[in-house]
Amino acid sequence: MKQLPVQIIKKKRNHIELSDTEISDFINSYVAGDIPDYQMSSLLMAIYLNGMSTNEIATLTKVMQESGETFNFSHLHPHVVDKHSTGGVGDKTSLILAPIVASCGVSIPMIAGRGLGHTGGTLDKLESIPGFNTRLSEDDFVSIVQEHGFAIMGQTQNICPADKKIYSLRDVTGTVESLPLICGSIMSKKLSEGISSLVLDVKFGDGAFMKTTDQARALAELLKSTGEKNKVNVTALLTNMSQPLGKYVGNALEVKECYEILSGNKDPLYQDTFDLSIALSSHMILLGKKADNFDQARQLATESIESGKALACFESVSKAQGAQCKMNEIPLPSNFIELKASQSGYIQQFKNEQIGYLGIKLKAGRKLHTDNINHLTGFEFNVKIGDQVEAGDVLAKIYYDGEGNAAKVLEELKSCIEIADKKTGPVQLIVETLT
Amino acid sequence: MKQLPVQIIKKKRNHIELSDTEISDFINSYVAGDIPDYQMSSLLMAIYLNGMSTNEIATLTKVMQESGETFNFSHLHPHVVDKHSTGGVGDKTSLILAPIVASCGVSIPMIAGRGLGHTGGTLDKLESIPGFNTRLSEDDFVSIVQEHGFAIMGQTQNICPADKKIYSLRDVTGTVESLPLICGSIMSKKLSEGISSLVLDVKFGDGAFMKTTDQARALAELLKSTGEKNKVNVTALLTNMSQPLGKYVGNALEVKECYEILSGNKDPLYQDTFDLSIALSSHMILLGKKADNFDQARQLATESIESGKALACFESVSKAQGAQCKMNEIPLPSNFIELKASQSGYIQQFKNEQIGYLGIKLKAGRKLHTDNINHLTGFEFNVKIGDQVEAGDVLAKIYYDGEGNAAKVLEELKSCIEIADKKTGPVQLIVETLT
Repeated sequence: MKQLPVQIIKKKRNHIELSDTEISDFINSYVAGDIPDYQMSSLLMAIYLNGMSTNEIATLTKVMQESGETFNFSHLHPHVVDKHSTGGVGDKTSLILAPIVASCGVSIPMIAGRGLGHTGGTLDKLESIPGFNTRLSEDDFVSIVQEHGFAIMGQTQNICPADKKIYSLRDVTGTVESLPLICGSIMSKKLSEGISSLVLDVKFGDGAFMKTTDQARALAELLKSTGEKNKVNVTALLTNMSQPLGKYVGNALEVKECYEILSGNKDPLYQDTFDLSIALSSHMILLGKKADNFDQARQLATESIESGKALACFESVSKAQGAQCKMNEIPLPSNFIELKASQSGYIQQFKNEQIGYLGIKLKAGRKLHTDNINHLTGFEFNVKIGDQVEAGDVLAKIYYDGEGNAAKVLEELKSCIEIADKKTGPVQLIVETLT
Repeated sequence: MKQLPVQIIKKKRNHIELSDTEISDFINSYVAGDIPDYQMSSLLMAIYLNGMSTNEIATLTKVMQESGETFNFSHLHPHVVDKHSTGGVGDKTSLILAPIVASCGVSIPMIAGRGLGHTGGTLDKLESIPGFNTRLSEDDFVSIVQEHGFAIMGQTQNICPADKKIYSLRDVTGTVESLPLICGSIMSKKLSEGISSLVLDVKFGDGAFMKTTDQARALAELLKSTGEKNKVNVTALLTNMSQPLGKYVGNALEVKECYEILSGNKDPLYQDTFDLSIALSSHMILLGKKADNFDQARQLATESIESGKALACFESVSKAQGAQCKMNEIPLPSNFIELKASQSGYIQQFKNEQIGYLGIKLKAGRKLHTDNINHLTGFEFNVKIGDQVEAGDVLAKIYYDGEGNAAKVLEELKSCIEIADKKTGPVQLIVETLT
């Protein structure tokens, strides 16, 4: 390291762009334990407050990726694609789009996360299938992708150790909510997958981290430029998270919804999950060069469901990852209480983030990384923004397990669904596509 | 502590003013070891970049002061005054003003520092008097102040431990040059002295930390408001540091200059040191309520030198602090080489900061806290900005000890004194007084 760490900190502090070498020296020395936490946290706060250029972010991302191992799927390029969602309430599209896209000939090596705060996580949902193993060895991960078209597992010790170490520090030093650092954390893991292309589902609205379309667009553009500077093609969708996606929120319940959609169930309450899954799948198929245009990709995606190929693909991966039963055989909750409309009118809005946090009270989600969750609990929503309801109609069900505090959650959920005299909506699900 | 440390960090990050309790909780928990360095460094960078209100700074200062002991001189109030200088090249006024002011009946409990970087330090100068002990016990410090009117020592473990711990961290996390943190560090130590009033010598120009009068005024106002919010009256002078103060730079050489001035030597090369010492002394006497107005204070200060009272006071303190000889008996350097003018003209400017750093090459100063210094080396300057010189005139002498690298320093010093055809200056020494 040619410069002292403090000199690099001072540069960022003074709004001077860091060079590739400065970024890699600092990060690599930190991972090696040669730079202490107190210097990294000082740099992180300087990055939080002074930002980073797109070049700095691309380099940070690459360096974090290269702190660990990268899967080699280059022999499958350009047909290796993944999707990343910035997180929401009831967002279960990964379980639908992965088998759709894989059954169309595109490989998806998906490293996914767990739920935290008000948002759910793909790994937790999959683990509501008895036996489903999300802690694969790297060899198993590769061979399942190669044989079945996709595999889904969690981050291992070998993947982006820099991200792991930096993320723990950000958590306790007030430097989590930084676009450059969020971007580096997301994209380094995606780059580690060895993909050729990536589709991003950047959510906005009350149930998303980004509250407005402008914020979501800024993040989408940053993620896209970071991917592209690192030779990964990126398409980003800005999608609405102002109401729960689909009918169910909660782990086993969401798997049930995925099963229903993959089986061709046309319940209108599944419509938004279906539409978003098909849109994301189509972009993945297009980027994965298995279609010449979007309409053709869309047709392939739809046919994959109608023919049953997607469901079969899911079941074969599920079995390969250890599942002891089929999707429609998983344990589901049986206890529920109903939330009924206290007045007639039109569904005006959801307090969607609060709904996500209510899930934590049912143990469907977790507050801290270390919390345990209950796969059986959750919500069923029978209405969408713009729907007309009569007083007494069932708006939602709260599924609980054992004694629980469902009655208390019911009381709070009441204030999360607003009914008004005047009709609003319906909500536009996909508002922008950045290609 | 009611809030998590990360919540306090986030507030400062988000430009929200911290409450007194938040500041004291954070600092006290840090000193107690309950908050780790990495959280403190994150907060320090947020303070560096987002600043602090004058209320926050006053509280920070008070909390840092109260992390340790404060001397109790309240029985001598309002006649307990100190001076603080922000540091310069050849700045030896403490050794002159302390005996002047003390001999006029004002007590001065002075906690001073060592030289670092291009600026000199009072303790190093005093230690060129054989036997002079700057590591007094707190009891001895108090009794010398009470008996002789002043005493000068370094910061002890019991004085502002928060400042000591935070300063070491700032040094390696790029958070040194922050006005709120500089202010907290300076003023917490001064408050610990138990003084009633303080005179500040805030320097600007090439040889000072603040390069412009505007920067110096901003620091002066902050220091003044911080003192006053903590019930210490403050007068601040903005003074010019664009050329070395007085004739000598270097530890023993500066003691010699102080002796000469206290003895009434009217060498015009001592004029600026004399003028500044008298001005600072007069403000101290005035704040110490030993004069009714500035002119009267000034007369008292001048008379204190003329009568020999100031010199006698210095010698009595010096003896009390362990000195084995009088001021005019200290070892002085005998080896020197001369820098002669390469052309005729007028002295245009000094590269004063560079001169300070050249002192380090002679070991008259130190680069790191841990470096040893040589008390015998230094510079003599025979010219001031605006002076007319003939080619071949001696501009300066370099005093060295042993073999040394005086010839190399001479070469570099050449470029530090600029001669031009057109007369400039003379420099206005004191440009502003904030009362």
